[in-house]
Amino acid sequence: MILVKLGGSVITDKSRLRTFKADACRRLATELLAAKESLVLVHGAGSFGHIEAKRHQLHKGFKEDEQLEHVAKVQRDVRELNLKVIEALIEGGIRAVSFPPAGAATFRACSVRSFDADAFRKLLDLGLTPVSFGDVVPDESMGFSICSGDLIMDSLAKTFRPKLAVFCADVDGVFDSDPKRNPKARLIARLDQKSLAKLKKSEPANDDVTGSIYGKLERMLAMARYCEKCMIVNGNVPGRLEKAIQGKKVVSTVVVAR
Amino acid sequence: MILVKLGGSVITDKSRLRTFKADACRRLATELLAAKESLVLVHGAGSFGHIEAKRHQLHKGFKEDEQLEHVAKVQRDVRELNLKVIEALIEGGIRAVSFPPAGAATFRACSVRSFDADAFRKLLDLGLTPVSFGDVVPDESMGFSICSGDLIMDSLAKTFRPKLAVFCADVDGVFDSDPKRNPKARLIARLDQKSLAKLKKSEPANDDVTGSIYGKLERMLAMARYCEKCMIVNGNVPGRLEKAIQGKKVVSTVVVAR
Repeated sequence: MILVKLGGSVITDKSRLRTFKADACRRLATELLAAKESLVLVHGAGSFGHIEAKRHQLHKGFKEDEQLEHVAKVQRDVRELNLKVIEALIEGGIRAVSFPPAGAATFRACSVRSFDADAFRKLLDLGLTPVSFGDVVPDESMGFSICSGDLIMDSLAKTFRPKLAVFCADVDGVFDSDPKRNPKARLIARLDQKSLAKLKKSEPANDDVTGSIYGKLERMLAMARYCEKCMIVNGNVPGRLEKAIQGKKVVSTVVVAR
Repeated sequence: MILVKLGGSVITDKSRLRTFKADACRRLATELLAAKESLVLVHGAGSFGHIEAKRHQLHKGFKEDEQLEHVAKVQRDVRELNLKVIEALIEGGIRAVSFPPAGAATFRACSVRSFDADAFRKLLDLGLTPVSFGDVVPDESMGFSICSGDLIMDSLAKTFRPKLAVFCADVDGVFDSDPKRNPKARLIARLDQKSLAKLKKSEPANDDVTGSIYGKLERMLAMARYCEKCMIVNGNVPGRLEKAIQGKKVVSTVVVAR
């Protein structure tokens, strides 16, 4: 099985509220057709989730009744994105069906407390491609919280032990400094606990409602244990995802558990 | 708790593919605000589901691989409708959040095999209004099947034992003959097993992919056991749903278990 995360920064313009990148998503769909194995997809919420979630502090859980209207609105927005992704995937030839995280998992303190992959398995057995996504979810200790796409990736990896997990980002992989600010930044082809520790010392982190980039990388390292191969590729560069799926050499960061 | 089904014939134009009745849905949202108790909503698929589902025989389960593309497409269409309903409800002041049936239930031979209301309960506890809907779902014996909104209503009623369950239809209730063809048709104010048996003898049934009208009424009679009151009102007539929720006298058919 192959597990692919379509990052929120690839399928949306993260800086502009609810801006979907339809062309990118349709292209990624055709690249996904390279998969000979069954596929499970996850996508981030991008600008359909993070901006409003942050404005109303939804990542901090229930504080006041007024937030609930925004829980409903952000969930609605995220489903609008999911619908657009599903549509683009179907147009690209993938038999994509939506599966929201709260239909399979329960959450406690921003973590997955239980995960039942049965519904995913049934969809896969039928020959369909389940598509889950980052979402606002009920949380047993916080009332509600944000379930990132990465969190679902982790649960899916533990269950399905995929041959390959690919994270499509808007950069070529992990760099030794921020490639958007430093043109001399160098790509780290192989990221492990040691290279991450080194990186953390040298570079400050930018946060979004699903945590810092280092938190994300820590989770990827943990998740890599359950995958034959786990990698980050640039989803904005045509062909990268396809090559990764085909097992070809590709510009990327391979995440190595230990 | 109050359980309300927004019939597919009320929120969509059932004869025209994917035609949403936004005004009707927004009006029903404001009528729902009359509820002093927590609300769980279910909506039918209307012309976003039935037309294509019937064309590709999805209600008969898996027959050939070609159907799977249409399973994905009909699921997508139904989610488009759900998104529109959620949007209209939020605009009307309801904190509506989507919950697809396959996130809570498993299915076998067009029936609910297991139903876990935990996610609905969590959303209710938060003060949100869960909204489920008729959908194409994985089915353990048929591959996939159609889960009607009525089927979800039944499972929800068994779990929550609602004070009131209201089915919003495009007619005033159940008539002794088809009111669309016979102007002398008389409304049955109180429907029980006996009056249904009488009705069945005198009138032929029209089918959709979720079964004949008599099948629906049989299920309502079964479900009425779990509700303090169970009724059918005309969702197209402004104020009927509101009055039903307020416990006021209203043109309707009350469904009585025995």
